[in-house]
Amino acid sequence: MESLKKLFQPVHEKVDETWSKVTIVGVGQVGMAAAFSMLTQNVTNNIALVDMMADKLKGEMMDLQHGSAFMRNAKIQSSTDYSITAGSKICVVTAGVRQREGESRLDLVQRNTDVLKQIIPQLIKYSPDTILVIASNPVDILTYVTWKISGLPKHRVIGSGTNLDSARFRYLLSDRLGIATTSCHGYIIGEHGDSSVPVWSAVNIAGVRLSDLNNQIGTDDDPENWKELHENVVKSAYEVIKLKGYTSWAIGLSLAQIVRAILTNANSVHAVSTYLKGEHGIEDEVFLSLPCVLSHCGVSDVIRQPLTELEVAQLRKSAKVMAKVQNDIKF
Amino acid sequence: MESLKKLFQPVHEKVDETWSKVTIVGVGQVGMAAAFSMLTQNVTNNIALVDMMADKLKGEMMDLQHGSAFMRNAKIQSSTDYSITAGSKICVVTAGVRQREGESRLDLVQRNTDVLKQIIPQLIKYSPDTILVIASNPVDILTYVTWKISGLPKHRVIGSGTNLDSARFRYLLSDRLGIATTSCHGYIIGEHGDSSVPVWSAVNIAGVRLSDLNNQIGTDDDPENWKELHENVVKSAYEVIKLKGYTSWAIGLSLAQIVRAILTNANSVHAVSTYLKGEHGIEDEVFLSLPCVLSHCGVSDVIRQPLTELEVAQLRKSAKVMAKVQNDIKF
Amino acid sequence: MESLKKLFQPVHEKVDETWSKVTIVGVGQVGMAAAFSMLTQNVTNNIALVDMMADKLKGEMMDLQHGSAFMRNAKIQSSTDYSITAGSKICVVTAGVRQREGESRLDLVQRNTDVLKQIIPQLIKYSPDTILVIASNPVDILTYVTWKISGLPKHRVIGSGTNLDSARFRYLLSDRLGIATTSCHGYIIGEHGDSSVPVWSAVNIAGVRLSDLNNQIGTDDDPENWKELHENVVKSAYEVIKLKGYTSWAIGLSLAQIVRAILTNANSVHAVSTYLKGEHGIEDEVFLSLPCVLSHCGVSDVIRQPLTELEVAQLRKSAKVMAKVQNDIKF
Amino acid sequence: MESLKKLFQPVHEKVDETWSKVTIVGVGQVGMAAAFSMLTQNVTNNIALVDMMADKLKGEMMDLQHGSAFMRNAKIQSSTDYSITAGSKICVVTAGVRQREGESRLDLVQRNTDVLKQIIPQLIKYSPDTILVIASNPVDILTYVTWKISGLPKHRVIGSGTNLDSARFRYLLSDRLGIATTSCHGYIIGEHGDSSVPVWSAVNIAGVRLSDLNNQIGTDDDPENWKELHENVVKSAYEVIKLKGYTSWAIGLSLAQIVRAILTNANSVHAVSTYLKGEHGIEDEVFLSLPCVLSHCGVSDVIRQPLTELEVAQLRKSAKVMAKVQNDIKF
Repeated sequence: MESLKKLFQPVHEKVDETWSKVTIVGVGQVGMAAAFSMLTQNVTNNIALVDMMADKLKGEMMDLQHGSAFMRNAKIQSSTDYSITAGSKICVVTAGVRQREGESRLDLVQRNTDVLKQIIPQLIKYSPDTILVIASNPVDILTYVTWKISGLPKHRVIGSGTNLDSARFRYLLSDRLGIATTSCHGYIIGEHGDSSVPVWSAVNIAGVRLSDLNNQIGTDDDPENWKELHENVVKSAYEVIKLKGYTSWAIGLSLAQIVRAILTNANSVHAVSTYLKGEHGIEDEVFLSLPCVLSHCGVSDVIRQPLTELEVAQLRKSAKVMAKVQNDIKF
Repeated sequence: MESLKKLFQPVHEKVDETWSKVTIVGVGQVGMAAAFSMLTQNVTNNIALVDMMADKLKGEMMDLQHGSAFMRNAKIQSSTDYSITAGSKICVVTAGVRQREGESRLDLVQRNTDVLKQIIPQLIKYSPDTILVIASNPVDILTYVTWKISGLPKHRVIGSGTNLDSARFRYLLSDRLGIATTSCHGYIIGEHGDSSVPVWSAVNIAGVRLSDLNNQIGTDDDPENWKELHENVVKSAYEVIKLKGYTSWAIGLSLAQIVRAILTNANSVHAVSTYLKGEHGIEDEVFLSLPCVLSHCGVSDVIRQPLTELEVAQLRKSAKVMAKVQNDIKF
Repeated sequence: MESLKKLFQPVHEKVDETWSKVTIVGVGQVGMAAAFSMLTQNVTNNIALVDMMADKLKGEMMDLQHGSAFMRNAKIQSSTDYSITAGSKICVVTAGVRQREGESRLDLVQRNTDVLKQIIPQLIKYSPDTILVIASNPVDILTYVTWKISGLPKHRVIGSGTNLDSARFRYLLSDRLGIATTSCHGYIIGEHGDSSVPVWSAVNIAGVRLSDLNNQIGTDDDPENWKELHENVVKSAYEVIKLKGYTSWAIGLSLAQIVRAILTNANSVHAVSTYLKGEHGIEDEVFLSLPCVLSHCGVSDVIRQPLTELEVAQLRKSAKVMAKVQNDIKF
Repeated sequence: MESLKKLFQPVHEKVDETWSKVTIVGVGQVGMAAAFSMLTQNVTNNIALVDMMADKLKGEMMDLQHGSAFMRNAKIQSSTDYSITAGSKICVVTAGVRQREGESRLDLVQRNTDVLKQIIPQLIKYSPDTILVIASNPVDILTYVTWKISGLPKHRVIGSGTNLDSARFRYLLSDRLGIATTSCHGYIIGEHGDSSVPVWSAVNIAGVRLSDLNNQIGTDDDPENWKELHENVVKSAYEVIKLKGYTSWAIGLSLAQIVRAILTNANSVHAVSTYLKGEHGIEDEVFLSLPCVLSHCGVSDVIRQPLTELEVAQLRKSAKVMAKVQNDIKF
């Protein structure tokens, strides 16, 4: 084009930069909230979107592209063909059938396994060194499923796990204590969802353990009923889905945080779903959440929290339930 | 609660901070994308959401609150009662019936006027010094409607206008030129939507006017067919709605940019819908977009772009169409 | 000017926005690092600089202004006259003679008291509702001095205190543990400097107390010699001053964090110097650092950390030393 | 260490991430302002500092490290040995003797050439694919010198050039027009410093050229004396140096912007010093500033601004002066 020749004196051809390229599979509410969180929070400016619904996919891509004047040099691509994902440092999988009101996470397994069998080999094909972050539910089992399908070493397959449950817990702590969520520390571990385990001994404000102020915290006998906070965390997902039809913002932000930790080689600690055989006496090959150190290699370490007997028992019980379901999956 | 007494030595009671409080009316896709953009881009950390659908409203509030550990001290409130909005510096109105596939913006006027008659007086009641930013469509007429209903001076009633059209235009320029959207400068003025006017003389890269490189740019005779870019801007809204059902991300980011300019007293220039009687020979009391200086007071100046006769004629034609519709509105 | 008349159609006169106005007194290395931290981290875009050295002051202002194209709508003012500070929400005082290599903090008191007597009444005069943040050294005593001179209630006079010592401590923990500084939690309390107190019981990773893994942590008998970390914190200030002549970046960032917490009404927890009579058995009117909840009102709460007898004894000893010095100050 | 074994269950060894590694050579005021700008603006979180003054270097490194709790996972390394720079995507060179009050930039050439002969081969040795960004003065000639010494293709050697002069110019426009610096567009091209050339035809607000409102703009006959703005740009460096002893903040921010454009593959346009033989009739191998497209490969295009005869003449004159000096340099 003549005008372009007049405008530009070429010096060197442009090259593709994939240092921070992130693929998001699935442009439903979760995938798009994750993409938008990453772009607006400057986690990455290079996103590839993949979905099977070509129309929806193109519409979401265009809508993000139209906002590029308001963001920092965002590059948004999309395709139903996985070649668009080539060179991704991280692939976030949000595809799968969405949890319905009242549906248990476990019921979704086989349907979503079949979906993952289509997705995962394609991702590995185009980005053999990628790290996989799984958000599809039931997330713990599907992280295991992804690990099996992908053949990747365990540090490179991560489930979004209880990073979100922990965030909800911290918000509820914040609400009760009247201080910033970012100053309320605590972890929910184990299964993302109904059987998750609050680690009351880890709940602290400025290093002050609430369990030192109230030694019945979290128990049925606690006159202050802190247990209610964990119950509300469990109810949260169901309630939000009931009220607005799905969850999106908080899980999108949670995924953006996990991706940032990996891309920036942060060595920061987050509760994510990881391979747990051998931890806390777990004997099966299951993925459940514990606080993990996330870095450029994926999971570099699992943090060993001293747990009460009850907490360990709950973890093991979840592991057994996982293992039982996993045995019945058809790969 | 005993634990709290042990944990805190109170020094002074907490106070409400409303320096940067922003109300968003309407928690549909546009309102929520705007809220999420403002929170993740740190435009404000204090948002009040209002909607008539109590369930949806509570669900969206909870979902944002659950993400507060991933944001910077976000304070999210919501209610169907406008008292929650008290002290807002800016109220963004996204409520109204959404544009349907194929529906012209002008058809929506009366229905949305009736909606605004419920909303605007409530906002003014609780935040008498607020600035109103209107995003409901057809935005130009509804900004006029809001101005009439509110009784506010014209600098305090702003329509989101062609800030979004300009962003889409700049993205398409970027795509054709191969350089960053943020380095492609250009304005779409006039009516948001079908009759919008691209100001080709203002399109420039590093101050180099494309119209100096191609003096037929934007005309039917242009062998390079740059006109197509504006046509694609007009089609964009329809196409995105057709593909994904609605538009959200780009308009959300556009609103966040306008709000940031006002809150930070930026004196930056944005194409927004403003009172134009007297500009470019417009004789009616209409709101259309021209580049405006946005600051703490709202619109402090309109930028006087030298326009071609054709551009002026297009603007005036839009103004006449607006005025005619406005005459038929029942307040 | 004719060109301006052609360019602008005025709508409403511009107004001064002081929602987030921050004054910094003293444009030495600390004051400028604080100003630059606040601007580049978007803590505020509205800064007034005051100093007695008119040349240096103007040079620093110009240098920041020249960078405004790279920042977000920064407004930088400066003057030797305090009227420039009118309407400041927060005034940060960094003025005073700088600590010299080898000089104890306590030696600086009287000289800096005389300086504060010139500064504080001027700040209060032009911003009667302001919150004062003191960074001049010795910071704890000078925060007390400021409180006395200003006549403000105690929640509105804050010393930067051990927020910096705590950050240094967390960096050293990070360095030893190999995980992110932001994932290493711990507090240094008491006096900023030589007699500061590390609260080993609060040091934790993901809620796991290091003192539960090593019950001799911090003591002379600890085979892992964690005590060395606190010793290095104390040495840090001296070492950096010896190596580069002054400290600037970390204290600037620390001040920016404190200012952000207040401006955004964060209710977040930071170790800052506050009025401590009555806490941990302290009987004198002294300011020392404990974890405090910072919000729009200044200090809203002090966090009551359970301390060991030794820690309490160290705190009380510091308090006694402070009180003794304070008795000899001539106001 | 026993505690660490108790705390961590290792999964995979940590790896070094160099996707966004930036080396800064020279920890004087410019180098440190650049480093701090990059860290606080999240341009990179991975910086290697090199200098010959080991003490100063260590002090600056420690001071930044102590601030890591307030930044996002910053990794700061330093050494007098260039092996620390291995794998850097960009190396910013700020080393060299600083311009003294009243000293012309051209006087510094040979001394700084000798310095660069020590530095550049070391940088290339450890980061053979790096892009070099030169800030040492006189920047245009030293960029040429670096290009010669390095043997790199011209798109990978960039001088900070008039990106700063342009920013100063835009601030002065902003100050006169009363609108945001970011909404005032304009370019200073040519030599960084005394003989720089303001491109008045490119100066615009919302695409409105000031030269269309005042056709004598920039000339001696202009009753509005806009020429004064460029004169003040030229005087600025001298004045700031006179007032505060050096320049730092604005040049630091300018460098951070250039680095961000390259790291994020932005394809954004900035006035930087580039190889200009063949442009605007320049016949010598000189580096001067024109608006350039910056991307992952360095300079991908030069923007061809239509210039007036006078502007071209000024550019060519600068080029001749450069070439003459360059001929006398001893490599």
